[in-house]
Amino acid sequence: MTTATATADLERDLAKVLDHLDRNAAGRVEELFDLLRIPSVSTLPDRTGDVRRAGERVRDALARAGLEARLFETPRHPIVHAEWKGAPGRPTVLVYGHYDVQPAEPLELWKTPAFEPDVRDGNIYARGATDDKGQMYAWVKAAAAWMEACGRLPVNVKFLIEGEEEIGSPNLEPFLHEQKDLLAADCVLISDTDQFAEGIPAITYSLRGLLYTEIRVHGPSRDLHSGQFGGSLRNPANALCEIIAGLKDPKTGRVLVDGFYDRVRPIEAWEREQLAKLPFDEPHYRADLAVPELYGEEGFSTLERRWCRPTLDVNGIFGGFQGPGAKTIIPAWAGAKVSMRLVADQKASEIAKGFERTVMRLAQEGVRVEVKGIGDGSDPVLVPIDTPWVQAAKRAVRRGFGADPIFKREGGSIPIAITFKRLLGMDSVFVGYGLPDDGAHSPNEKMKLEDYHRGTRTSAILLAEVAGSRD
Amino acid sequence: MTTATATADLERDLAKVLDHLDRNAAGRVEELFDLLRIPSVSTLPDRTGDVRRAGERVRDALARAGLEARLFETPRHPIVHAEWKGAPGRPTVLVYGHYDVQPAEPLELWKTPAFEPDVRDGNIYARGATDDKGQMYAWVKAAAAWMEACGRLPVNVKFLIEGEEEIGSPNLEPFLHEQKDLLAADCVLISDTDQFAEGIPAITYSLRGLLYTEIRVHGPSRDLHSGQFGGSLRNPANALCEIIAGLKDPKTGRVLVDGFYDRVRPIEAWEREQLAKLPFDEPHYRADLAVPELYGEEGFSTLERRWCRPTLDVNGIFGGFQGPGAKTIIPAWAGAKVSMRLVADQKASEIAKGFERTVMRLAQEGVRVEVKGIGDGSDPVLVPIDTPWVQAAKRAVRRGFGADPIFKREGGSIPIAITFKRLLGMDSVFVGYGLPDDGAHSPNEKMKLEDYHRGTRTSAILLAEVAGSRD
Repeated sequence: MTTATATADLERDLAKVLDHLDRNAAGRVEELFDLLRIPSVSTLPDRTGDVRRAGERVRDALARAGLEARLFETPRHPIVHAEWKGAPGRPTVLVYGHYDVQPAEPLELWKTPAFEPDVRDGNIYARGATDDKGQMYAWVKAAAAWMEACGRLPVNVKFLIEGEEEIGSPNLEPFLHEQKDLLAADCVLISDTDQFAEGIPAITYSLRGLLYTEIRVHGPSRDLHSGQFGGSLRNPANALCEIIAGLKDPKTGRVLVDGFYDRVRPIEAWEREQLAKLPFDEPHYRADLAVPELYGEEGFSTLERRWCRPTLDVNGIFGGFQGPGAKTIIPAWAGAKVSMRLVADQKASEIAKGFERTVMRLAQEGVRVEVKGIGDGSDPVLVPIDTPWVQAAKRAVRRGFGADPIFKREGGSIPIAITFKRLLGMDSVFVGYGLPDDGAHSPNEKMKLEDYHRGTRTSAILLAEVAGSRD
Repeated sequence: MTTATATADLERDLAKVLDHLDRNAAGRVEELFDLLRIPSVSTLPDRTGDVRRAGERVRDALARAGLEARLFETPRHPIVHAEWKGAPGRPTVLVYGHYDVQPAEPLELWKTPAFEPDVRDGNIYARGATDDKGQMYAWVKAAAAWMEACGRLPVNVKFLIEGEEEIGSPNLEPFLHEQKDLLAADCVLISDTDQFAEGIPAITYSLRGLLYTEIRVHGPSRDLHSGQFGGSLRNPANALCEIIAGLKDPKTGRVLVDGFYDRVRPIEAWEREQLAKLPFDEPHYRADLAVPELYGEEGFSTLERRWCRPTLDVNGIFGGFQGPGAKTIIPAWAGAKVSMRLVADQKASEIAKGFERTVMRLAQEGVRVEVKGIGDGSDPVLVPIDTPWVQAAKRAVRRGFGADPIFKREGGSIPIAITFKRLLGMDSVFVGYGLPDDGAHSPNEKMKLEDYHRGTRTSAILLAEVAGSRD
């Protein structure tokens, strides 16, 4: 078979697939809704059964499509694996995604319930709509369309869809260790990032790492009457605030954790130039967040601060009386979730040590301070953009979204990408189908219905482009 | 009738009353339990009906005893008023107390439910056991015992039992304004303080004032993904911590609110000497609180810090994700309840202004900071100890508790005492029946069963002592 014939065959098959996708849009949305209805919140022990149900549903969808699909058990939430190996001599791609979601709290801020998907103004509203059920399911339906329309896939395809991404993927690395052969592929395709803006699709080449911790400050053995005891002992909530205030310079925005910036790679001149050229609308961004002013590390632009610089944030703080009105107590303890986003070449393990050392140095007499790591932390990711897979993705996005993608960094984390590289030597391609204002992790998370469809088409095309890239 | 005869009659009557109390101990405990079972948490809107029920129960008990008792409505919780004026020419006392209680949260720390009174090791465990249902009801039962045993009281007695003490008595001052005649008396008797220690009863002559506030820091319009946005805007929880850290010097323990110490009356030499002589067991105090070290304002002893010096405490702090595990958000807002205890001659109204000014000076760019007062605040109280009423109380305590009371200050606040003085010219006598480790405002609040009985006897005796003091 000549290359020209093969290409023509591929195009004809792809046309059938895209036609099939056009004719089955409604059913594809219904299936996604069924998945969105399952509150698969991986961090909440009460939701363990729901997380499993979501995994089973993804497995079943892949099995129905004709892939060999199964659940692998882990100490916590199961991993979905599926494969189709009917294209010997052709490349093999590994599609990675996750079926677990963030908690939906605060529930009262949702306009419609988080786990009852609702379409308004062309958007699907639900927890997980964009992160990552909608984007991941685009891949499931793209593969299914190939199988249904042509009875085959244009390349060998493996799926690895986990249920623990939102809790730091604690059981995925051991799985990768054990199942190297099962997972071996030429590249990893991941849709868990976003476009740059409406009409400006994007391929992401760098993600920040994450270190998530909890600080607890323990004071008296019980809540105390603040009148009877106040003044004679250290208040753990005041102490917690002092420690947190000591972690960041409020003027310069610099993180004061020991050794925090030691390994940070300076932003190169070409990248600063490229970032500055992006049509980033800062007044619009500020207005969307509804803050009086933007704020961040001195000497960097907003995009640099979000994508290229490390930072530290309190994710939650709690202690003492939280009800309406007054309760005059000194709380027995107070705590805060504090996380850091890391950039190349920071190491999460080193920063964790520096963080604990810094907190302990700030710890006051009269209270007992404790630092707990939550999850293992993840290092930042930087992938090359000159691989055939990235170039295939560029062509697929151009066709699927009708515009050339830009190359960008992202501030979030996909910890597993670094593990794919380290353990299996595979580079990842981050093709984002969502939008930056989709509200991942926020109330009223959404995905544009049209982006779900364009994403599914792009995924179908990308499989063909990968096939073509080696013909 | 000669004085000697009158005194003998009074003694004979008192003997009957004390005998009556001895014979009716069990029923007195049952009645208190019925009151403790009502969750009259004045700060919680859901508990409005329960608060009223508690007030009605107190009114009914006083009416059954033969006093003229009624409820006065207020914009929120009703006031119980009762009186017996059958002793013309004799003094009139006003017994003040409250039937509302603090919230019971955190519920999981209670060994038995907060509103199901339980007796263990000679203690009554329940929210309100000591603050103030137990101490207040000792007065109700003392008056009832006089009426039941002798058909009369030895002096004219008025009761003013409110349902809003734990929320700063917002409607009591207007009531005092309107009902000056109804409330007129020679002195106010209040049991809402404590003994110095087991075996060392006490009369309190000074209480701290209270200023209760809430700081809210508003950031973005919604919780944001900390990866996508982190570094580009000010985190309201970090900002809140920085503000709170700026309110107190962590080294010296000094409050940094503008003008905070301007009016603070220095502790006089005689008082420092007297305080130093009290058998205060500091190692025991520290061990009871289970803190590594005590801590407070430099240059002052622990009792001075608790009773004679002003202070500032975070009573509660909240914002963002509080569940188990990780949620990677920048919270939309964060808040804290912050209160100050004031001493003579600080003015709550002045300190409130200084506090707001200080917080606003600490407020950062990029967030919106709001300060709300909760309640009106109350000025500190210092009462003379050489009045006949205090001396009568001293004799009553000696007889009721079997030991001479000491005179002490207290760190808590009874805001209404200052209003009694200002509006009605009445000095208050603070006779405490509880113990310092009763856990007012804490989980597992208790009152020693024996202190409830001793308190009831002391109240009955004190009425006779007041009668005798003018014979």
